[in-house]
Amino acid sequence: MAAVSRNGGHLASNLGVVELAIALHRVFDSPRDKIVWDVGHQCYAHKLLTGRFGVFPTLRQAGGIAGFPKREESPHDAFDTGHASTSISAALGLLAGERLRGGAHRTVAVIGDGALTGGLAYEALSHAGQLGLPLVVILNDNKMSIGPNVGGLSKYLSRLSMKGRYQWFRRKFDSLVKRIPGIGEGAYNGIVRLKRAIKAIFYSDNFFVDLGFEYVGPIRGHHIQELEQVLRDVRKLDRPVVVHVITRKGKGYGFAEDDPGTYHGVSSFAMEDGLPKDRKQPSFTDALSRAILEAGRRDHRVVAVCAAMEKGTGLSPFKREFPRRFFDTGIAEEHAVTFAAALAAQGLRPVVCIYSTFIQRSVDQIIHDTALQNLPVIFALDRSGFVGADGETHQGLFDLALLRCIPHMTILAPATGGELAAMLDWALTQPGPCVIRYPKAPCLPGEDRCAAPLEPGRGVLVRQSGGPLCLAFTGSLYPQALEAAEILDARGIEADLYNLRFIKPVDDAYLEGILNRYEMVIFIEEGVRRGGFGEYAAALALRKNCSARVLVLGVPDGFMPQGTREELLRSQGLDGPGIADAAGAEYERSRSPVFHRGYSGERILS
Amino acid sequence: MAAVSRNGGHLASNLGVVELAIALHRVFDSPRDKIVWDVGHQCYAHKLLTGRFGVFPTLRQAGGIAGFPKREESPHDAFDTGHASTSISAALGLLAGERLRGGAHRTVAVIGDGALTGGLAYEALSHAGQLGLPLVVILNDNKMSIGPNVGGLSKYLSRLSMKGRYQWFRRKFDSLVKRIPGIGEGAYNGIVRLKRAIKAIFYSDNFFVDLGFEYVGPIRGHHIQELEQVLRDVRKLDRPVVVHVITRKGKGYGFAEDDPGTYHGVSSFAMEDGLPKDRKQPSFTDALSRAILEAGRRDHRVVAVCAAMEKGTGLSPFKREFPRRFFDTGIAEEHAVTFAAALAAQGLRPVVCIYSTFIQRSVDQIIHDTALQNLPVIFALDRSGFVGADGETHQGLFDLALLRCIPHMTILAPATGGELAAMLDWALTQPGPCVIRYPKAPCLPGEDRCAAPLEPGRGVLVRQSGGPLCLAFTGSLYPQALEAAEILDARGIEADLYNLRFIKPVDDAYLEGILNRYEMVIFIEEGVRRGGFGEYAAALALRKNCSARVLVLGVPDGFMPQGTREELLRSQGLDGPGIADAAGAEYERSRSPVFHRGYSGERILS
Repeated sequence: MAAVSRNGGHLASNLGVVELAIALHRVFDSPRDKIVWDVGHQCYAHKLLTGRFGVFPTLRQAGGIAGFPKREESPHDAFDTGHASTSISAALGLLAGERLRGGAHRTVAVIGDGALTGGLAYEALSHAGQLGLPLVVILNDNKMSIGPNVGGLSKYLSRLSMKGRYQWFRRKFDSLVKRIPGIGEGAYNGIVRLKRAIKAIFYSDNFFVDLGFEYVGPIRGHHIQELEQVLRDVRKLDRPVVVHVITRKGKGYGFAEDDPGTYHGVSSFAMEDGLPKDRKQPSFTDALSRAILEAGRRDHRVVAVCAAMEKGTGLSPFKREFPRRFFDTGIAEEHAVTFAAALAAQGLRPVVCIYSTFIQRSVDQIIHDTALQNLPVIFALDRSGFVGADGETHQGLFDLALLRCIPHMTILAPATGGELAAMLDWALTQPGPCVIRYPKAPCLPGEDRCAAPLEPGRGVLVRQSGGPLCLAFTGSLYPQALEAAEILDARGIEADLYNLRFIKPVDDAYLEGILNRYEMVIFIEEGVRRGGFGEYAAALALRKNCSARVLVLGVPDGFMPQGTREELLRSQGLDGPGIADAAGAEYERSRSPVFHRGYSGERILS
Repeated sequence: MAAVSRNGGHLASNLGVVELAIALHRVFDSPRDKIVWDVGHQCYAHKLLTGRFGVFPTLRQAGGIAGFPKREESPHDAFDTGHASTSISAALGLLAGERLRGGAHRTVAVIGDGALTGGLAYEALSHAGQLGLPLVVILNDNKMSIGPNVGGLSKYLSRLSMKGRYQWFRRKFDSLVKRIPGIGEGAYNGIVRLKRAIKAIFYSDNFFVDLGFEYVGPIRGHHIQELEQVLRDVRKLDRPVVVHVITRKGKGYGFAEDDPGTYHGVSSFAMEDGLPKDRKQPSFTDALSRAILEAGRRDHRVVAVCAAMEKGTGLSPFKREFPRRFFDTGIAEEHAVTFAAALAAQGLRPVVCIYSTFIQRSVDQIIHDTALQNLPVIFALDRSGFVGADGETHQGLFDLALLRCIPHMTILAPATGGELAAMLDWALTQPGPCVIRYPKAPCLPGEDRCAAPLEPGRGVLVRQSGGPLCLAFTGSLYPQALEAAEILDARGIEADLYNLRFIKPVDDAYLEGILNRYEMVIFIEEGVRRGGFGEYAAALALRKNCSARVLVLGVPDGFMPQGTREELLRSQGLDGPGIADAAGAEYERSRSPVFHRGYSGERILS
């Protein structure tokens, strides 16, 4: 484990579950028994214990091992995780499958108290209680603090209730009482209630029991013998059980595993006036942070909603200044959206700040609870596009395709911090829902061409060269498109730059004008091509018989691995040189005399 | 209320909450106080009490009043509902908004015990407990039966705990105990536990209390005075409260409001062998029902998963024959998908049967938990396309656009019952996830051209005339496309019919062949055009310089109102005559000498 500490940073947050991981692997027989780590942040010790010590320095790097469990990596990673609150569903499914196949191996879900706020976890607990299979749920609780006396007593009681003898006695007793004619069932219910009442005196009764689980705990999460003893008893149970394990923060660096906002690291907001610090290249998150604070000062109807990502989304200054107008729902993206829709129904101006990857959880709440009533909720989607080291599970590449089909929806993609602020201000005047999507990246400094007033459905030409090409890009790729234009320039091909701004709605006539003005228009988007803006534009160009050749550059149909945003953009040909090469090659090809039909663009759009 | 009974059918399920609706409207001051009805099935009495008596006969008909609450219809409908489990989120948002605006009005959520299984409801309860606002949640429980003695006693205790005097005493007592130096907090916790223990003897303690709610109940839901008294007390509370109301089934027709499967009415499956009855025109649901049963008999790995829609999705015969291989998660679409993904990870072959409109809830579980690991889960999406009387909230028009962008995903659209069976069998051999989407409609009888073996990415020509037009349709529109071809035939324009079968993946070269073979190809889909298959095909045609004119017919960017499926298809020009008119007009226009560019297709694709 000494090697772990040398790696610093992300490993520290895992120290809280080192003993738990060791105890689980001693007691359970992985990979036959299956352990599902919720979110997966805390799987490092598990990975080290299951043969990935040597490759550990490649953690979260391109081509290296993942920061989350991955079945491809090891049979000990029972189910891929990344987003919160999935582990109980997954473990229950694995267990039900194991039983159907006639196997008797066990499954364990390890879930933090943060992830337990997600509705998915509750749905799974409820189903597990109904099925009655011997699922083991480890509640890794690093928040609740319970005095040693209460803890000690309850531990004793818990241990007792685990003993086979007691289990046997209880079963016999239960069935005997029930069989008393006439009054049996009623008396039984009374006794059950009494028993629960007595237990409740000693330790907090809880909803796990209501849902049909045994409850064991709280257990001290850093006492490995105690953990092992309890887990050995639990392993023998034939019913679902929650083991409540208390782990302490501060055993590593100060960030909590249930607070991914802190975990991912954020910009500094420490200035006295609550505004984010002015650095040379502030990020889009900084820009949103400042813009919403200023909007909040101007308009008391502006409220902010986030789902356990206060820091990551840059809302801390807003919260500090307007605590009553700030709502953190916990890890509950669905509720955050419906809640915000209702705030909007009351005449307020909610801004829901959620990462692109997590908005995938709220699609129905956006359609059914927001767009259908045309309620003016603003969705500020941070981390849209490639997100880097978190890999497949966290890429923000689907938002455009998922949200573009929703009626009443406006989708905006700012190219600069100034444009983001202008878009937020504009969106706050609109009668319906708006999405503003921006990347995990710094903004280009000193750009004001992009901060020009918005015209619905229209983008803005940010580079006019009079050349034959137009690079039409979604905001986040402005620097890449700019670089591509400069490279093409150097090759003697002049290209204009068209910042699309509006992914939806689209002023078709205006876009048609663009599609007739140039020899070739290259649509570049940081998102999947299937269902993306490029398909819409191509369909328009075809329908209107526009004269320009159309090329669509975007992310092909597949999951994108981990790596830095720059590495990933380069790998998909979406960096400056990649765009310039593709555009230049296609332009030369379209001008060659043999070009008629079936040009080889299929590598690009598939 | 006599007029209600005359309307029969759907009204019956509302009889269970008539007294509750009356009591709520007597005690709360709607529309200033806001009442949110979860799902909304049970809002009929509410609608009758709020001025919609005269228009009630138009219920659920085209142009008539909706079967669900709608803000457009009345200020008394505080928030639109339709999908389950949204009411607590919505009511909490309305209340938080009211308080931020300085208002003191109340909000009430009425939620059934069925809808309470949805994770969204739990997320909202958890957040409500945290905020501490005086939200009133009425738990309309028509399942749990509690003996009159217990009920009476608990009602007494509940009433007592509502009295202002008791509230005052408890607050004082609590703060006094806490202030005892040193041991104060510990003793307080002990007393709290003891108090809860005593309460637990008399009535079931529950997780509402754990989440920070007051709990009142159970209350007899058909005793209007009792309801009113309790609600009057509850209205004075300054904390969130759950009022547990027991309503009885069987006061109307036998279908439960928390079992929309039964409510929507389903085909009969009463034959001794468990197979659905052979009628002249069985529905797609019947076809799935039979196909999955037969697949289950052939392959013991086949398991079925549904979310509270056993009957609606046709799974009753499968459940009867394979009870251990059938899982009903309750209203929990997210969990259903992740659970199924884990079953697939265990080598099983899960078929998740969910209505198209409800799969909107599982988008992240499909992306993150299923497709990312390329797990072979089959999604049988019933009610894809126009669903009729349920209106906006229940249309199945987004599935193609939402799911088409997901990597590893196969999407199939059968045109007949035989093809559905062939697709299910084929999907069961695939290594990754497959969607099979089919409408709430009868199948064409006696079609076997469509049951030909599947070739990945390719459709099948089901009508070959040698004509200049090709109508390429998503399966559910086969009868409409066929009718259109016959109409065009009669007008002297011959059209082939191409059943697309695969929405994804697409054999581009094969589709390119189609796009070069005809003068014009008309893509017809029962789904939104934005992000739909037509955009993909148009982009392909443009990229490959295909010779055919392309016309895309689909659902424009907007929410579709209630009406029969036929009415809705006609209104969007997707019935036989509509397709024939659009295709014929476009064909004539494209052949006219002035046709060059900018033909007026914008009415069609916008």
